[in-house]
Amino acid sequence: MKLDDLARQIEAQVVGDGSVDVTGVAPLETAGARQIGFVSNPKYLKHLESTRAGAVIVGENVQSNHVALLKTQDPYYALMRTVVLLHGHRKHPHAGIHDSAHVDGTAQIGAGTVVYPNAFIGPGCRVGRDCVIYPGATIYDGCRIGDRVIIHAGAVIGTDGFGFATHGGVHHKIPQIGSVVLEDDVEIGANAVIARGSLSDTRIGRGTKIDALVIVAHGSTIGEHGLLVAQVGIAGSTQIGDHVTLAGQVGIAGHLKIGNHVTVGAQGGVMEDVPDKQVLIGSPAMPARHARRVYTIFAKLPELLDRIKELEERTLSLEGRGKGEG
Amino acid sequence: MKLDDLARQIEAQVVGDGSVDVTGVAPLETAGARQIGFVSNPKYLKHLESTRAGAVIVGENVQSNHVALLKTQDPYYALMRTVVLLHGHRKHPHAGIHDSAHVDGTAQIGAGTVVYPNAFIGPGCRVGRDCVIYPGATIYDGCRIGDRVIIHAGAVIGTDGFGFATHGGVHHKIPQIGSVVLEDDVEIGANAVIARGSLSDTRIGRGTKIDALVIVAHGSTIGEHGLLVAQVGIAGSTQIGDHVTLAGQVGIAGHLKIGNHVTVGAQGGVMEDVPDKQVLIGSPAMPARHARRVYTIFAKLPELLDRIKELEERTLSLEGRGKGEG
Amino acid sequence: MKLDDLARQIEAQVVGDGSVDVTGVAPLETAGARQIGFVSNPKYLKHLESTRAGAVIVGENVQSNHVALLKTQDPYYALMRTVVLLHGHRKHPHAGIHDSAHVDGTAQIGAGTVVYPNAFIGPGCRVGRDCVIYPGATIYDGCRIGDRVIIHAGAVIGTDGFGFATHGGVHHKIPQIGSVVLEDDVEIGANAVIARGSLSDTRIGRGTKIDALVIVAHGSTIGEHGLLVAQVGIAGSTQIGDHVTLAGQVGIAGHLKIGNHVTVGAQGGVMEDVPDKQVLIGSPAMPARHARRVYTIFAKLPELLDRIKELEERTLSLEGRGKGEG
Repeated sequence: MKLDDLARQIEAQVVGDGSVDVTGVAPLETAGARQIGFVSNPKYLKHLESTRAGAVIVGENVQSNHVALLKTQDPYYALMRTVVLLHGHRKHPHAGIHDSAHVDGTAQIGAGTVVYPNAFIGPGCRVGRDCVIYPGATIYDGCRIGDRVIIHAGAVIGTDGFGFATHGGVHHKIPQIGSVVLEDDVEIGANAVIARGSLSDTRIGRGTKIDALVIVAHGSTIGEHGLLVAQVGIAGSTQIGDHVTLAGQVGIAGHLKIGNHVTVGAQGGVMEDVPDKQVLIGSPAMPARHARRVYTIFAKLPELLDRIKELEERTLSLEGRGKGEG
Repeated sequence: MKLDDLARQIEAQVVGDGSVDVTGVAPLETAGARQIGFVSNPKYLKHLESTRAGAVIVGENVQSNHVALLKTQDPYYALMRTVVLLHGHRKHPHAGIHDSAHVDGTAQIGAGTVVYPNAFIGPGCRVGRDCVIYPGATIYDGCRIGDRVIIHAGAVIGTDGFGFATHGGVHHKIPQIGSVVLEDDVEIGANAVIARGSLSDTRIGRGTKIDALVIVAHGSTIGEHGLLVAQVGIAGSTQIGDHVTLAGQVGIAGHLKIGNHVTVGAQGGVMEDVPDKQVLIGSPAMPARHARRVYTIFAKLPELLDRIKELEERTLSLEGRGKGEG
Repeated sequence: MKLDDLARQIEAQVVGDGSVDVTGVAPLETAGARQIGFVSNPKYLKHLESTRAGAVIVGENVQSNHVALLKTQDPYYALMRTVVLLHGHRKHPHAGIHDSAHVDGTAQIGAGTVVYPNAFIGPGCRVGRDCVIYPGATIYDGCRIGDRVIIHAGAVIGTDGFGFATHGGVHHKIPQIGSVVLEDDVEIGANAVIARGSLSDTRIGRGTKIDALVIVAHGSTIGEHGLLVAQVGIAGSTQIGDHVTLAGQVGIAGHLKIGNHVTVGAQGGVMEDVPDKQVLIGSPAMPARHARRVYTIFAKLPELLDRIKELEERTLSLEGRGKGEG
């Protein structure tokens, strides 16, 4: 593909020779003359002057005398379109349900859906069109999965919620009669677990992407277009809004209501309801601006203690002087 | 079933018309006239006056003019019995060992045990009666599993402990010659991992329930009737007592002794032995009452710093005044 | 085997009767007369005087009047060699690729490699010699795996990195065209996940051991001879040096550079570059010595607040006295 053609398709502006051929995308440091590089993080802008890439996708204000640029308002989006155009999405080694997958006779699987070997789809499940169920993924009975959903290897959908009635010191299992609903365009990461609800369904909203090793516990609901990064844990019966981003290893307690457009930083711990548009950091999580001050002071606690000790000495000295005068 | 019959079986007292038919359990907000609702958390008591449920399981002190009540000392236990009566536990789509499971010829599997497709049970394993081994669960060689044990999809029992002898900067694998023992009525969550012991066995005591994505490392033992919530990590050679509850994402260091009836709050980190009956919070974990004070002050560190700065100014001023007088 | 023979092979010095027969290794507390015990942790030295073991592997300065000793400079290494000599590594129940494994026709598998049932190896993968791929492990297309690599049950290698271009509030999947490289002698724990790179490869260096439930995100590289303990999370595009130890539940943010010989304590959170040889603790992670002071003071915040309150009262009193005099 000519660089000019690519630029047109990704709606970027070429600064440089648009007639060169490009065949793929590569990291700035290793890209060759027919490869497209990419830089968005300012930290890596310095590599622009040493790259051998054929052209580099950048933001609109970036300049270079060294390499052709593909300027665009949203470099990351342009990168995505370029990779799709030049490399495409994964080609699956087979179509439909593989012989080594186990799909219960009562499950319904939509057209275009690929089910890999060793996947399991239980009784009464409904899986939509154009989904991909990777090896070793397990979908328990009665789950409902929309269109274009991707479930990565080893993910478990619809396992029993962790619900027990403790009576006389013994934990009695409560049958979990809710199910799991994954709406259209959801992606579930490798070895992630979405537990079925105790009474109501656990629901993951349209377009929400869940990374590896995440747990969403029974009866929680996550809105649309969220991002849950690896190892996040959501306890039961919590309602999370739309466009929520939870960074890696975040924990959210149960029975909470988290608003829309909320972001929680890595390893954060949320134990209270959160209104819309909050950015939280820390465990327990606090509004980011406040949290940054708290953690800065936290790291200086030894200095704070020294200042208190010094004040105590000076105060004692003042008190002594007072007495001396008395 | 008549409401009166249900009440008798779950040992609850009907306040209202006991002659109505009930067919199932549902959340308070969506339950219909033939469904039983449930409320235990005071946070949700307000829904009692708007529910359309046929009756609601509640504690003994709850009142309502709006809906029939099933009063009981232990509402959660009554809920469990109701769900079991009206819905029952999961009906498995097959009996015994599925053709697509892989059970080693030397493994022994008790009567009534269900092994799902894609499960693996290695050489020399002994699995008791009436267990359920869900799809993709793997049990390494030589593990011993009691009766009525449930192992959810993707869980791994008896993988090698993370044991290496580092010599000259290289990590040499130590064969892990211990095994894993899961006693009767244990439940292991989806994608949880119970590693085999280096020398002695890793043991999970009778009735202990372990949630998804938990790791119990080599040689640790967990007592009876514990609850380990999702993503908990127990390092090696730690002994945990009976009736211990570890909330989500808790970490327990290795070579510790944790007493009976200990509770650790979510994301807690335990690095020292813990006596019986302690409730701990935080990382590093502290007794809950103390920890709550600590974290309250922690969130106000900027204010604390301001108070120290103000004291410094006032002290300087006092010192100056003293000098002025001198 | 005679104790003397064992001692010669593990390069230890016998203190006691070397003519006794030994058949295995066992914990100090349960070892019998023909079994070798082991003690390295000073916490357990007390058991030396009550053990019934035939002999005990210890460090060079340990003494006992009660039991024969195998003295060695590196007890843990001697233990490893003893266990290998007396017990050996796991004997696999089959050789080569099991019929119930799924290996794509275009994948290459080296001689001596064992692939268990329910494992999946995708198109274009190259797996070296003498590897072990345990049940339910999944290797996505195009991954390259060295010799003597061990991949435990349920581990997922080469799943898609969590890469999306968010445009107009919708997350668009970026095809992840990098791959995963596991160099020689790497071990990947049960249900761990190594995601493929967006553009470049995710790489795990020679001899690095990764425990259960760890996630290494897209495009990160880990040097040689590292140890990543259970539930560690490494975000994307981070470069980690050689001989790095990350304790359980540690999180490392993305786009960082972590030096060689770095150690991070359990539950630590690293958000900045780390130079060589640092030992870090806490979240956010701080140099260990400083962190220990910080956390000691943190636990005493209520006392600190009391001291500030007292200072405020005394200062007020001093100010009042000043005024009284004025």
